[in-house]
Amino acid sequence: MLVRKIKSGTVIDHIPAGRALMVLRILEITGREGYRLAVVMNVESKKLGRKDIVKIEDRFMEGEEVDKIALVAPTATINIIRDYKIVEKRKVSAPRLLEGILRCTNPTCITRKEREPVTPRFRLVEGKKLRYQCLYCGTIIEEDEILEQLIGRNP
Amino acid sequence: MLVRKIKSGTVIDHIPAGRALMVLRILEITGREGYRLAVVMNVESKKLGRKDIVKIEDRFMEGEEVDKIALVAPTATINIIRDYKIVEKRKVSAPRLLEGILRCTNPTCITRKEREPVTPRFRLVEGKKLRYQCLYCGTIIEEDEILEQLIGRNP
Repeated sequence: MLVRKIKSGTVIDHIPAGRALMVLRILEITGREGYRLAVVMNVESKKLGRKDIVKIEDRFMEGEEVDKIALVAPTATINIIRDYKIVEKRKVSAPRLLEGILRCTNPTCITRKEREPVTPRFRLVEGKKLRYQCLYCGTIIEEDEILEQLIGRNP
Repeated sequence: MLVRKIKSGTVIDHIPAGRALMVLRILEITGREGYRLAVVMNVESKKLGRKDIVKIEDRFMEGEEVDKIALVAPTATINIIRDYKIVEKRKVSAPRLLEGILRCTNPTCITRKEREPVTPRFRLVEGKKLRYQCLYCGTIIEEDEILEQLIGRNP
């Protein structure tokens, strides 16, 4: 089965093995939108050992989508294809500052008050693991919680 | 990108366009089980116009799984591959009698009483649309409800 080269669209490569469906979830792609797409999972990768790849025809990523992909697939590279050629290639990286994507887990945090709407803001805590700290109350959000907020309990 | 021939496993072909991820859900495959797999969605098909295909290495289907696949992908063909060859090819078909897979939607149906556990049984109602009738209370279950029971609201 040959998954053809795509004429125009996006190839998300070097997704950590087993996370391609999370990436589709983040992009809110169920398949019923009609995009032609290919997903391969758990294939060999020199860099990662195993990896997943997602190819989507005629679908491009926007800023917040790229940030969310970076959170679930920090090793990913995003290739933009036009007229069968890669016109842009970029490595995602976890944003240093996150605005409005995650919710603080501290129920008494000012960002959780309904009367004073404050956009949640987090800073990336340096280190190997993905961790963010709320700029308002200092609460640390770990990777498991981040994945759960982004894709739900049953990805 | 070449999705190689698989040595051993299952190819589910002729899935109605947009339903491949539902099939993965039914098989409880999230990707993190480690199976090497490929999914293509919304590709051309002579038979169906558009279709989806799922290939899974080293994973085979059991009886109840095949019945569930038939419910979400009634046009599917299941090819069993061993040693790079198709050793079995079968078309799924909606089972005439379903036992224990669906739940009757009538809350007063005897199959819903906790004190007298009765396995739900449904018969296929002939016709173009997928419909099942409860053998106990006569309630008809339509396709939307069937999909919801099998894969949840947010497939």
